[in-house]
Amino acid sequence: MKTVILIGAQGHMGQAAMTGLKKHNVITASRSGTGCDHTVDITSKASIKALFEKVGPFDAVVNTVGYCEYANFSEMTDEQWDTTIQSKMVGQINLVNVGLNYINNGGSFTLISGILNVKPIPMAIADATTSGAIDTFVQCVAHELPRQIRINVVNPTVLEEAWDVYGEMMPGFQPVPGALVGKAFERSVDGFITGKVIFVDA
Amino acid sequence: MKTVILIGAQGHMGQAAMTGLKKHNVITASRSGTGCDHTVDITSKASIKALFEKVGPFDAVVNTVGYCEYANFSEMTDEQWDTTIQSKMVGQINLVNVGLNYINNGGSFTLISGILNVKPIPMAIADATTSGAIDTFVQCVAHELPRQIRINVVNPTVLEEAWDVYGEMMPGFQPVPGALVGKAFERSVDGFITGKVIFVDA
Repeated sequence: MKTVILIGAQGHMGQAAMTGLKKHNVITASRSGTGCDHTVDITSKASIKALFEKVGPFDAVVNTVGYCEYANFSEMTDEQWDTTIQSKMVGQINLVNVGLNYINNGGSFTLISGILNVKPIPMAIADATTSGAIDTFVQCVAHELPRQIRINVVNPTVLEEAWDVYGEMMPGFQPVPGALVGKAFERSVDGFITGKVIFVDA
Repeated sequence: MKTVILIGAQGHMGQAAMTGLKKHNVITASRSGTGCDHTVDITSKASIKALFEKVGPFDAVVNTVGYCEYANFSEMTDEQWDTTIQSKMVGQINLVNVGLNYINNGGSFTLISGILNVKPIPMAIADATTSGAIDTFVQCVAHELPRQIRINVVNPTVLEEAWDVYGEMMPGFQPVPGALVGKAFERSVDGFITGKVIFVDA
């Protein structure tokens, strides 16, 4: 049994990840902290550090959050770009950067991107661009991690559980059950792979 | 003959691009302006706007600049990440965003990334991550561009002309002549392709 910190535990993606982490001691966190063990804002290095200090030793970080703004490219403001970059991209990079000081030997990081970087749709340019950045980051930084620490990213399509929210903007997409995406998180946490983008698509 | 704005014209990559743009009316720009027609700082939207206002009508923008900081991941500071993101990633996105208000119908944007996102090396995590972001951005935003405007990105390996600077940090890489990379810029500017990552590697 591993001690796993799951960030964004109450969201659809967090719940999906949870289905793959049942055998572990899962410590939950989210920005609001509602229904979770801890609060964390991944856009703040101080907040990330405080979380790891409070939790104590752990074997894995599974992140399922990254806030994105949606707009047509020509209408997207500097602030919308910056918000998305600071959360989905820099926030996840910082999780790894800070987490390396706390995670156990042989631990793992599992980040989140999303299928829109390979299946683009209107309004999602910032989501796609930052997903592309994170997919690349994971594939490259894996070579630098010390102490047998691994890193992967789950790149899922839309969840069945979130289809009522996103379905209208994603014509022609086939949603997948959260439990299938949970398998991807399980494969990252319990496997030996590193530097991989684990696509989950129908 | 097209009017092409070449940014970073005096650099090795700019000189490589120039070899592919000989048949055109090339207007040059760079941050310092040395040896160029204009100055431009791509990290400033106001500076980008001023450039386009001064040039008047044009058919293509070819960008060959994007400043990156190099460090081991665990030692890279917030400031080094931000500098790289603001130049190589956001700067190039802003070039397109502002340029769309000025470029002629049927015009094209050609951005620059670099091979380190698919062939990672030590110290280059920020370069790789932002190159991955730009490669993704180009592939996705192409679908949104109006008025038959195209966009591509050239993703080259190291140039023979820059091997004395970068060779030591890139063991096992085969440099290519700038004139070969120039062909990639030519193919982007004079072809009909859009949304493509044009890799140039040996």
